[in-house]
Amino acid sequence: MLRALPNIKDQEQGGVAVVVNLESERARARTSLDALTALVSEDMKRVNALIVQKMHSPVALIPQLAGHLVAAGGKRLRPMLTLAAARLCGYRADRHIGLAAAVEFIHTATLLHDDVVDESELRRGQSSANAVWGNKASVLVGDFLFSRAFELMVQDGSLSVLGILSHASAVIAEGEVLQLTTTNDTTTSETAYLDVIRSKTAQLFAAASRIGAVVAARPKAEEEALDGYGLNLGIAFQLIDDVLDYSARQAELGKTIGDDFREGKITLPVILAFRRGSEEERQFWQRTVEAMEQRDGDLARAIDLINKHGAMRDTIERARHYGAIARDSLGIFPDGNEKRILLDVVDFCIERAY
Amino acid sequence: MLRALPNIKDQEQGGVAVVVNLESERARARTSLDALTALVSEDMKRVNALIVQKMHSPVALIPQLAGHLVAAGGKRLRPMLTLAAARLCGYRADRHIGLAAAVEFIHTATLLHDDVVDESELRRGQSSANAVWGNKASVLVGDFLFSRAFELMVQDGSLSVLGILSHASAVIAEGEVLQLTTTNDTTTSETAYLDVIRSKTAQLFAAASRIGAVVAARPKAEEEALDGYGLNLGIAFQLIDDVLDYSARQAELGKTIGDDFREGKITLPVILAFRRGSEEERQFWQRTVEAMEQRDGDLARAIDLINKHGAMRDTIERARHYGAIARDSLGIFPDGNEKRILLDVVDFCIERAY
Repeated sequence: MLRALPNIKDQEQGGVAVVVNLESERARARTSLDALTALVSEDMKRVNALIVQKMHSPVALIPQLAGHLVAAGGKRLRPMLTLAAARLCGYRADRHIGLAAAVEFIHTATLLHDDVVDESELRRGQSSANAVWGNKASVLVGDFLFSRAFELMVQDGSLSVLGILSHASAVIAEGEVLQLTTTNDTTTSETAYLDVIRSKTAQLFAAASRIGAVVAARPKAEEEALDGYGLNLGIAFQLIDDVLDYSARQAELGKTIGDDFREGKITLPVILAFRRGSEEERQFWQRTVEAMEQRDGDLARAIDLINKHGAMRDTIERARHYGAIARDSLGIFPDGNEKRILLDVVDFCIERAY
Repeated sequence: MLRALPNIKDQEQGGVAVVVNLESERARARTSLDALTALVSEDMKRVNALIVQKMHSPVALIPQLAGHLVAAGGKRLRPMLTLAAARLCGYRADRHIGLAAAVEFIHTATLLHDDVVDESELRRGQSSANAVWGNKASVLVGDFLFSRAFELMVQDGSLSVLGILSHASAVIAEGEVLQLTTTNDTTTSETAYLDVIRSKTAQLFAAASRIGAVVAARPKAEEEALDGYGLNLGIAFQLIDDVLDYSARQAELGKTIGDDFREGKITLPVILAFRRGSEEERQFWQRTVEAMEQRDGDLARAIDLINKHGAMRDTIERARHYGAIARDSLGIFPDGNEKRILLDVVDFCIERAY
């Protein structure tokens, strides 16, 4: 089935009433994950049940702490990618359930470890899990979930999947360490930043998508297509995440913004604003995110500078570029419901910037 | 070959000169890992080379931090167990090299994560890696090594080994979390303490030994014998480790003691001294390791109380019990050089208490 995407030219030439209807329908699809959620909803119920089951431990603190994260309930985007990719590949059996749970466990472990507060960072804001239970519990429960992920993969029995996800885990850790070395460094290049997000975020999107083709025993070309889809989707997703942290609109919606700024994380909006800024503006960035001397009103000024230099707009443009690659990666798959939904996920990841 | 173990009865009945010679030779074997080190020295060179190779990453901080631990060079007891167990099982090919490296990576990752300082613990002593590079780097490099361990196992290609080590990793994490919940709790029972050390320490000894039989494709009974050997050896090893931390003799030798005391870890010497102590003595323990109000001279008093109640002697006795089980576990293997050396490892793990 060809996608009913309203053509911009049509819109310019009139026929507005029809276009508006199509467009509003498309806009709904674009700005939510509803279609993806509906596609995998039965599978996802089983994944969630498996997650609860495998989180169990006689050591009560483990399900307590892990349950805190699971109940907080993120978008579950990564396991949904595994489930949807498996369906795109025509897979009809059960293995994708356990592997989607493994993907979510790896993601949750990464979150727990990412939230560990450094000694030097204690003065700054703390995230929830380790604020309640402490650094050490977060680390150890993360290790437990990570080990459980590998147990789930061993149960599945595919060395290919084990290879893909153990490699992804190593690359994620490398990306996180690389990010440590760029934190508080305003001279970080766009290339170095992209290396970080390609590793720390996009690698798991790629692996999660790829294993959908592996369980379906599809040819290497389809594995690689899904890997390329996930990788580029993940880069776009992270770019937009970094944009949202400086978004005045998010603040209006009551969302917390400015976390990256307060932590001195050097993301693309800052890199662009710094490079395009005056000497005085660079001194502002050096004081706030390098020397970490932050005062009231600094976040507002950071947002002003980022907007003034078009750094939000251009970061979104970069995200569109990777989104376009993600879309084209799926080109080798025949059109159909699953493909359309996966293409819409790309739109969702980018359109949520607005 | 039967072991030339001097019988205590012989010693009592005379023949002292001969017995002394044998005994001094045995004592050397018992108080060092020299024989084990010699047995696996060629293999261990290859393991070390592989460790250095797999520690490599374009992210420079990773080999720096990991190299710090590797250079610090522990006893490498766990990978040596894998190598020696494989030899005991008559294995002559190469797979044990990569798996021994995987075992060491898991152990190193555990060490890095175990050293993470909790927010609430910052006032107390810090261990080296995270003191130099911070909590966050320790966690992430640990994750990297852990992932690399799984990559090594995937390369090996045995789902049995992957199952054994992923399960061991989950149990280790459970043990570490359980230990968190017993820290500062003087009412911890001996049973709860044993649950902790069985999980956090002995499980990896068991897995490391067991996979020697797996690579050699030996029958389940030999796998289980080596598992039982490693498990009980690991318990004995940890009990003696806990004894050494209160050993006046270790202090005389210039070793640091009192780490567990300062951290409020509840180990068997403390559990026994607490249970056998007077009301006033229990208040001492409650103040020092529960309320964590420690003053000069408290460690000396702790050592006095532990010795007064025979808690050192009896913890060593408990270790002997598990050592005996470890020895008997190897009973099904024919006598020979490898077996004799593995039996001597049990003696080493216990005799180092003196």
